[in-house]
Amino acid sequence: MNAEIISVGTELLLGHTVNTDASFVARELSTIGINLLFCGTVGDNVERLKDTLESALNRSDLVITTGGLGPTEDDLTKETIAKAAGKKLVLDKDSLNRIENYFKGRLMTSSQKKQAMLPEGCTVFPNDLGTAPGCGFKTENGKILIMLPGPPSELLPMLKNYAIPYLMENEKAVIVSKMVKVFGLGEAYVAEKIADLTSGTNPTAATYAKDSEMFVRVTARAESEAQAEKMCAPVVDELKQRLGDYVYGINVESLEERVVNLLGEQNMTLATAESCTGGLLAKRITDISGSSEVFHMGAVTYANEIKTLLLGVPEDILNKYGAVSEQTARLMAEGIQRVSKSNLGIGITGIAGPGGGTKEKPIGLVYIALCDGKKTWVRKMPGSSTEKGRSHIRTLASSNALDMVRRYLCGIGGLEKAAYSKNS
Amino acid sequence: MNAEIISVGTELLLGHTVNTDASFVARELSTIGINLLFCGTVGDNVERLKDTLESALNRSDLVITTGGLGPTEDDLTKETIAKAAGKKLVLDKDSLNRIENYFKGRLMTSSQKKQAMLPEGCTVFPNDLGTAPGCGFKTENGKILIMLPGPPSELLPMLKNYAIPYLMENEKAVIVSKMVKVFGLGEAYVAEKIADLTSGTNPTAATYAKDSEMFVRVTARAESEAQAEKMCAPVVDELKQRLGDYVYGINVESLEERVVNLLGEQNMTLATAESCTGGLLAKRITDISGSSEVFHMGAVTYANEIKTLLLGVPEDILNKYGAVSEQTARLMAEGIQRVSKSNLGIGITGIAGPGGGTKEKPIGLVYIALCDGKKTWVRKMPGSSTEKGRSHIRTLASSNALDMVRRYLCGIGGLEKAAYSKNS
Repeated sequence: MNAEIISVGTELLLGHTVNTDASFVARELSTIGINLLFCGTVGDNVERLKDTLESALNRSDLVITTGGLGPTEDDLTKETIAKAAGKKLVLDKDSLNRIENYFKGRLMTSSQKKQAMLPEGCTVFPNDLGTAPGCGFKTENGKILIMLPGPPSELLPMLKNYAIPYLMENEKAVIVSKMVKVFGLGEAYVAEKIADLTSGTNPTAATYAKDSEMFVRVTARAESEAQAEKMCAPVVDELKQRLGDYVYGINVESLEERVVNLLGEQNMTLATAESCTGGLLAKRITDISGSSEVFHMGAVTYANEIKTLLLGVPEDILNKYGAVSEQTARLMAEGIQRVSKSNLGIGITGIAGPGGGTKEKPIGLVYIALCDGKKTWVRKMPGSSTEKGRSHIRTLASSNALDMVRRYLCGIGGLEKAAYSKNS
Repeated sequence: MNAEIISVGTELLLGHTVNTDASFVARELSTIGINLLFCGTVGDNVERLKDTLESALNRSDLVITTGGLGPTEDDLTKETIAKAAGKKLVLDKDSLNRIENYFKGRLMTSSQKKQAMLPEGCTVFPNDLGTAPGCGFKTENGKILIMLPGPPSELLPMLKNYAIPYLMENEKAVIVSKMVKVFGLGEAYVAEKIADLTSGTNPTAATYAKDSEMFVRVTARAESEAQAEKMCAPVVDELKQRLGDYVYGINVESLEERVVNLLGEQNMTLATAESCTGGLLAKRITDISGSSEVFHMGAVTYANEIKTLLLGVPEDILNKYGAVSEQTARLMAEGIQRVSKSNLGIGITGIAGPGGGTKEKPIGLVYIALCDGKKTWVRKMPGSSTEKGRSHIRTLASSNALDMVRRYLCGIGGLEKAAYSKNS
């Protein structure tokens, strides 16, 4: 099945809103094996939307629109699409009830009610986080049209909970996806190492890189969930076998989520002392709801005096080896573990740039230490003259710290192994 | 002049890369007054790219492509566009020299050289951060074609430094833009308050909202820069007049940049003690290169014991008023200011959710305190049952803290004034 996405909204053409909706929809379509031919963005303009829709219906079997379902006059997607497809708009009572409930106790304008008007005979997709419902229907010549709201917070749940199931039902198939999450290996290296696994069609396996991490998505399509699960399993096992302990989880959201969960399961606590990452590691950990159970304290010790005062890093160590040194990282981890009375302490010190690099200590050089109160491990990011910038260095350093905690808690060793050393 | 963007790349259709290029280009075009009609995304496919280009050239005066200029076989934008426009590709020696220089000491393949082949008679846009050059040229019937590389780090500087000037030269006009940055007022409120200013055509003024901030962009188009500056000035002055001390800067990057600069100018230092924001404030401050001069210490004191141990918040205060209270925020700010020996201390405590809210202390309730060693001010974010989620609350709380520091350093008062209280 070939598909197109049409995103509607003048704000997208002004460039102040990035079109993430199209990416979300594209990703979900690729998961269920639907081939996306084209994405288009049009402003809030009836004629251009109509032209774009007609071209799309000529080329493709499925057209998904995002945006333009709201209550204002600018929101003209539904009217335009319904007219072009020869459908009348009729009042959907369930949607009207939902909208009335949403406005309980507040003033509701008649334009809000307009949102409950939907193409005759369509399947309604309720909006669990807003007012405008979405919908799906077939045209007379068998093409499928789907309309979704623009705000990503409304689009995402509607897409996953209603639109994709609607498409799956239509296709009479079930899809199961497994995300094999990896930290410490480059995408090119992994792609080569699993080349034979990525050529299959069902299940499929494909690599994706994001920030300093990557993942392999394994997707199977079958008549039942159990069958699809069964088809994924051997590929996932083979990936785990080949990528070893670089795999940090299957279908987990992020490295920080994995670490917070592991700490929780083992009743362990963690504290952080950061220099060059400046709070990013603490921020990533506390992004996870419930992290307060396992994370009691973080310190951002930018100045040397604070490293001495708070963490007890001796002045002469700082003078002799410098703030960016294995010795300092080690003493930062030991200091924060001791001060916070946590089970584990992390110390990070390095040069994030763009200033401050020297020949001996280049931009990107970062030392990361983990202390469990008995022993301390240190991992080194060597840095180089071709570093990818401050933000990348800071993200990679915080990911390395999380990876060390994960390896410690899983008892799999490799704590001091530099990530990406296998990466070509 | 009407324009279209065509983004080329199968990775965009798989949804794992968000098409930020189109937004960057759209924003720059709107700045120089070029009207963007349509954006399209196609895969690495000659036929579909050709069809899309032909439709675009039928409708628009300017077509900008992003992506597909690299060395691999997939990269077919240049060949396809040149052919469709009836242009031969010829070797550009300057580009070849640049590419050879880039690969100095490393192996360069013949496919790398292919990147130096460009449409005959075009204006070459050098790639300052990569290998593939971009270019611009006119077709026989006067349409303008521009090709830019896909990686945002290469596209952005090329767009700003070469493509936009190329278009401006063609238009024989100079554009000056002023971003009037605002924190603490909602977009709807501001839009109403400046409605008469946003209806002009030269200069134009338009509002944009982003995260918890917003800005008004004033743009003038004239024959010289001095003239365009002169046209912007009265509108900017009027905006400052109407929006008052909610304006935190003109053409500054962010609230955190403004605060780090103010601290630097005044030789002041800042320290932070964060609870619910979990390091986000420290992270935002240390995002700014050079922040180490003014930011010596941050603490993430999630656990009550740490608030007592590190910041000296008495246990009985925590028991009596709770960790989320005005009293605790105040003592956190005072504690971190004292411990770090900084000029200013910030304390933040609140409920970021999704768990932990009660009727008395709802999700989104956050207290933010600023202490200068003599006096302490507290700002309260009241929270409500319809909060926009953990990430939004954390961002807004850290922005409020930065706004308090800005107001203190600028001596303009309003430190305890809740942001958005004027927002309808």
